[in-house]
Order: sequence, then structure tokens, then C-alpha cells
Amino acid sequence: MEIISNIKEIQTRCLNARAVGQIIAFVPTMGFLHEGHLSLLREGRKRGDLLVLSIFVNPTQFGQGEDLDAYPRDFERDERLARECGVDLIFYPDAESIYPPGYATYVSVEGPLTTSLEGACRPTHFRGVTTVVTKLLTIVMPHVALFGRKDFQQLAVIRRMTKDLNLPGEIVGLPIVREDDGLAMSSRNVYLSDDGRNDSLALVETLRQAAEMAQDGELASEKILSSARQRLNAGGTLSIDYVKLCNAHTLEEVATIDHNTVMLLAVKVGKTRLIDNGPLLG
Amino acid sequence: MEIISNIKEIQTRCLNARAVGQIIAFVPTMGFLHEGHLSLLREGRKRGDLLVLSIFVNPTQFGQGEDLDAYPRDFERDERLARECGVDLIFYPDAESIYPPGYATYVSVEGPLTTSLEGACRPTHFRGVTTVVTKLLTIVMPHVALFGRKDFQQLAVIRRMTKDLNLPGEIVGLPIVREDDGLAMSSRNVYLSDDGRNDSLALVETLRQAAEMAQDGELASEKILSSARQRLNAGGTLSIDYVKLCNAHTLEEVATIDHNTVMLLAVKVGKTRLIDNGPLLG
Repeated sequence: MEIISNIKEIQTRCLNARAVGQIIAFVPTMGFLHEGHLSLLREGRKRGDLLVLSIFVNPTQFGQGEDLDAYPRDFERDERLARECGVDLIFYPDAESIYPPGYATYVSVEGPLTTSLEGACRPTHFRGVTTVVTKLLTIVMPHVALFGRKDFQQLAVIRRMTKDLNLPGEIVGLPIVREDDGLAMSSRNVYLSDDGRNDSLALVETLRQAAEMAQDGELASEKILSSARQRLNAGGTLSIDYVKLCNAHTLEEVATIDHNTVMLLAVKVGKTRLIDNGPLLG
Repeated sequence: MEIISNIKEIQTRCLNARAVGQIIAFVPTMGFLHEGHLSLLREGRKRGDLLVLSIFVNPTQFGQGEDLDAYPRDFERDERLARECGVDLIFYPDAESIYPPGYATYVSVEGPLTTSLEGACRPTHFRGVTTVVTKLLTIVMPHVALFGRKDFQQLAVIRRMTKDLNLPGEIVGLPIVREDDGLAMSSRNVYLSDDGRNDSLALVETLRQAAEMAQDGELASEKILSSARQRLNAGGTLSIDYVKLCNAHTLEEVATIDHNTVMLLAVKVGKTRLIDNGPLLG
């Protein structure tokens, strides 16, 4: 396994690999790898001849007052885990080389896909995501790039962007990986206190409850959402950013649920912001 | 020579050519080819194994009330000229395939590079240019893309964008090609009446006069600009959009000229908008 920080070097390596017929699989991350990331790497290992992992805590997707500086980092551990998953190249650039002096170019997906849900809470977030992912994809030029479905809206935005910009390569979304008790894996889970960790189970329980209601025949969004809000508020310790029922492709809210409906949640547990999602009839 | 309208088809052709070691040279145009375009194609023919020409009148770079519908088109003539220049592939997409229903992604270069000069007169112009050029570059993935220096600011913006987005491949700018009497070649020259054609010579004469002043030792921008405005206004038939002296790299205005200074002009001759530029001490 090699660790490459220089953009030109990794780009040349990847273009050369492509030129000799290798299939490139790519997993872009912000590091502090957990089982969710590892599931992407294992799938990438199956699909690609050259497996590339990027680790870059991207400043442009953090808003003012968000946790950019506090974001957890442990490169040595990431390196070990990457090696165990069979990663060939770790791309590990610094912010100065990704955004050098005079940097001025931004990629935006416009409209409800980026202004709703996370976009409403974090207005510059997706512009940062689409800009850095475009750059990473033009640097690595993978045949397949793998993303987790925990960031459900991000995956939808990236699909839109890669299609719109005609970036070659397939975007693959893989299922959420959860702790034994159901909490979705997230690098941010380390922020949680013991009480917070316990309170955070309300997210997955809310998703389970909503799926049960739907499977029992309740198709009215407002009824399901009302129960969801009750469940999230029951402990009195969570603060809801949003809880919505949306079409899985357009992310537009739906009044009546169907097989394409997903529930999306964002809550604050203390100072820690957690998101989760799940299908209702899937 | 082949003509390909389908995006996937040309992308596959170009990726395959790259995979077998061919150098791809690319000339993106809006068609209605003139000697300026042909100079790009001839240079591209020298530099590339596969020479790709795109012809696409890009709606997103035209503002409201601009000449999108009237923009001159003559595909048969373009096809003949392309063949004479040794073009291998013409990429000739329609607007619906470049911007399909649901299209939502835009590439913007922010700051003075796009808000000054053409950007001040045509506020959405460069966003349209950078979006379509990003798409064309990700579709064709050329080793070298060739642009004319007549669109001087466009070239600077595209250089910024390709660098910022880490698009592989070199951006080459080639000199303005002029008619015998000095008028810069432009597809829009066909709009000019006989009188307008004559009046339009004021642009190149203004550039020549400014270069003479500079070579005679006048380095104060305001003096050179004042003479330039006088020359442009002398006939009473031109309307000045701008006349500026700028640093050739940043396009920031300069108070005192040097070897990096370029004069940039935009005027209306009747309803026809013409631009031109030239170095002062180059």
C-alpha cells in the first residue's frame, strides 16, 4: 500500500493504471474509518484492480460554527484498517493543495435536491461536497466510486452531479452499517457521552416504528411523522433538525407513502448532530 | 471523419483512444467556423493522434435578449472545413442531451475573473461557459484543448477552472486570426452591415494606437484609455461596452502598464457586439 499526498502524482498513477486496462475503484472519505467505510472498501476491493481510498477532511463542506477543527482524525489507525481491506493507494492531500491560493471554482447542484433537508440546515454544505467530489473524481477518474447510504441526500446529490457533468464511472451506494444496537456508524459517534449514546438510539427506533406503522397499513405521512416526532421528543433530550418522508430519488416530501418513500432524520444529541434514514416499505 | 451526437458514444470512443495510447486534441466551438477556429484545428492536428471538434451553440452562456436564436449556423460548411483540417471526430450534440430534463449542476469561477469585463456586461455568461466546458472536457478527456485568444477573458477563466478542478490535459491559447484589414475573425462578423463592417475597424485601430503610445513611452493607463475612447467615439456610430487595461493573468485593471498588460475592448456596432484585445508592449 502506498500513501500519496501529491495530486499530480496520484492522477498520473491512476491515468496510467487506466491506460493499462486496470479497473479503478474509489472510496472518498474524511477518514476516522468505521465499519461503514470498511464495507465500502471491501466492496471496492471486489470490483476494482486498483483500490484507492482518499482521506481528506474537506473544509468547504463545513459551515461556520461546525466541527471542522474538532472532526476526529487518526491517520495511523486509518492506515492500518486500509491495509487490512486491501487498499492499494491512499490519497492523503492537505487543504492547501486541494484549495491553493487563488482557488475560485465551485460546483453546485441547484434546486430542492440541495436546498432541502441537510441543505436547509447547512446552506453551504453541498456546494463544498460537490466541489471536492468533482475534484476527487477528476483526479482519480475511477470506474466505480462507492458511497454509504447513511448520507442519503449526499448520495442523491452526487448522483445528480456526476450525471450532469458527464463524469465517467459508476456511483454505487451501499447500505448503512449499524452498531449491534442499531445506531448508524458515524465518525461523529465518538462525540457522544454515555447518556447521549443511549439517547441516540431514538433515531433507529423512530425509523423502526415508522416502518412498522407503514407495514401495518398507515400510508398518511402526517400520521407517521407525528408519531416519529413524539418518539424523538419522548426522552426530552434530543433536538430535532428535521424528520421528513421523501421520495427516494427527488427527495421531495410526499403526503402519502409508497415503496419509493424514505424517512430522513437529523437530530442534535447534546452538541452532536446525527443523521439517519431508512425505507418505509422497502 | 465521423460525426457523433451521442454523449456516451463519443466518451467511450475517446476513453478507448486514450487507453490505446492515443493523444487526444480537442477544439470546442459553437460552429460557423472561421479561420480562427481552423488555426486551432490545424494546431490540434499537429499535437494529437485523435482530433476532436465539438460544435454546440451552448444556450446557458447566452443571456436574455442575446443572440442565441440568431447565432449563425451552417453545419454542412463546418463539416467540409473540418474534413479539410483533418478532424477525426465531430461531436455534435443537441441541447436536450447536454442539458436533459432535471439538469441542475453548474460550475462557477467566482470573483473578479468572472465579474469584470464580459462578466459585468453578461452576468450569467461565464457560468454557462465553465459549465459546458467542464462537461465537454469530462466527455472528451483530451490531452490538449485549444482555444483562441480573441476570447481572452474566457481563456483565463477556463485556465483557472481546469486548474481548480484538476481536469487533466493542457489548455492552449492561440493568437487571434484577423481579416486582411485587421478585424478579428468572429462568427458574429456576418451580422455586420457594410457600414458596420467599416466602422468595426475602429477596434483594431484603437489597439494599434494604444500599442504605439505605449511603445513611445506613455505608461499611464488613463492617458492611453482616454485616447482609446476618443478613437472609438470618433465615428459617432460605436457604443462602448468597455475599454480597459488589465493584467493579462488576473485581468485586474492596472494604473501603469507593463509587459503583462493587455487592452480589452467590447463595443456595439449597431446591434452587433464585438470584442477584441491585444498586448501593449508584448
